[in-house]
Amino acid sequence: MGMKQRGLLVVFSGPSGVGKDSVLKKVLASRDDLKLSVSYTTRKPRDGEVHGKDYYFVSKEEFFDVVNSGQMLEYAEYCGNYYGTPLSTINKELDAGNTVILEIEVQGGEQILRKFPDAVSMFLVPPSLEELTNRLKNRNLDSQEIILKRISEAKREIEFSCNYKYVIINDSIDECAGKILKIIDSEFCLFRRMQEYIKEVLNNG
Amino acid sequence: MGMKQRGLLVVFSGPSGVGKDSVLKKVLASRDDLKLSVSYTTRKPRDGEVHGKDYYFVSKEEFFDVVNSGQMLEYAEYCGNYYGTPLSTINKELDAGNTVILEIEVQGGEQILRKFPDAVSMFLVPPSLEELTNRLKNRNLDSQEIILKRISEAKREIEFSCNYKYVIINDSIDECAGKILKIIDSEFCLFRRMQEYIKEVLNNG
Repeated sequence: MGMKQRGLLVVFSGPSGVGKDSVLKKVLASRDDLKLSVSYTTRKPRDGEVHGKDYYFVSKEEFFDVVNSGQMLEYAEYCGNYYGTPLSTINKELDAGNTVILEIEVQGGEQILRKFPDAVSMFLVPPSLEELTNRLKNRNLDSQEIILKRISEAKREIEFSCNYKYVIINDSIDECAGKILKIIDSEFCLFRRMQEYIKEVLNNG
Repeated sequence: MGMKQRGLLVVFSGPSGVGKDSVLKKVLASRDDLKLSVSYTTRKPRDGEVHGKDYYFVSKEEFFDVVNSGQMLEYAEYCGNYYGTPLSTINKELDAGNTVILEIEVQGGEQILRKFPDAVSMFLVPPSLEELTNRLKNRNLDSQEIILKRISEAKREIEFSCNYKYVIINDSIDECAGKILKIIDSEFCLFRRMQEYIKEVLNNG
């Protein structure tokens, strides 16, 4: 194939405790063409955080320059600081043929899918709510009361899965990571992403 | 996951000489849940052909009973014999959770996709028309004149790829078979095919 395909923007969501981070770690470790999206933030870097890797640490002015130019895919305020996803850094990776994975909660995901309809959206679900409860209990981070709150929040988030193209059950990290890689590979075979290639075949013979 | 998903109907096409049979052989050998669609035909069985495996050998009357009941997905006449794809045998496999692969030329494929919009359509393309020419030459079956005719026919068929959801380049049989398996697995993760599962998760907790 003479030409290189543009990378994919993957929007990745799922309820708290479902295991998004572990699955993404596995996915990202397996291939060089997969990158995690790096957000802009106006908060100060913490010890050990690296500019351009953990976040792009920017001033409020720089942040809103991007917002006002329409180049922020989504943004939100949290504890007085702003966090946002700049289109420019994503497009740079996509143009280089890399696939960018963006882990985001369901409301932010909705904003992105509206502005970037070509994105591939994936929603991670637990095998059952009982299993999710067990996972939250085993983390030993939350009280019984907080766990009940998290489960009711998880239910609300799972209702949003209807906005997503793919739903993946996280029953095992390896299988789940494997499915994500299969979905990415198969998305590259969609007719609309192969159209240029077909033109090339037909015009050279 | 408590419930079993229904299998997929895969509509598989591509120009003559692109290697559909070799690729499908590889795909079918790799998993038990993948079955080749078996057609009805009114022609007599040839030596070694097995009823229910190569074809269902039926009388003209039986054939048109199925057609007239609206249960033939597509059919065509060839050399005075009829060939058709009965919906009932496909549905039996799909209900059992098996995926049925139907190799068919582009016009028949178009008929099926209209009647069975949930089918997953895949089109196999050669890496280039030059490579397709080489493959046809290496088979040593056709004269130069016939090969030119086949290539011009292949171009016409490749134009039909726009009716297909996925386009797969056959540069290597193994890679190509791998892509088909990835597409099948990822299609099972589509939201609409996971909807029942999500309902089950939300109703049990």
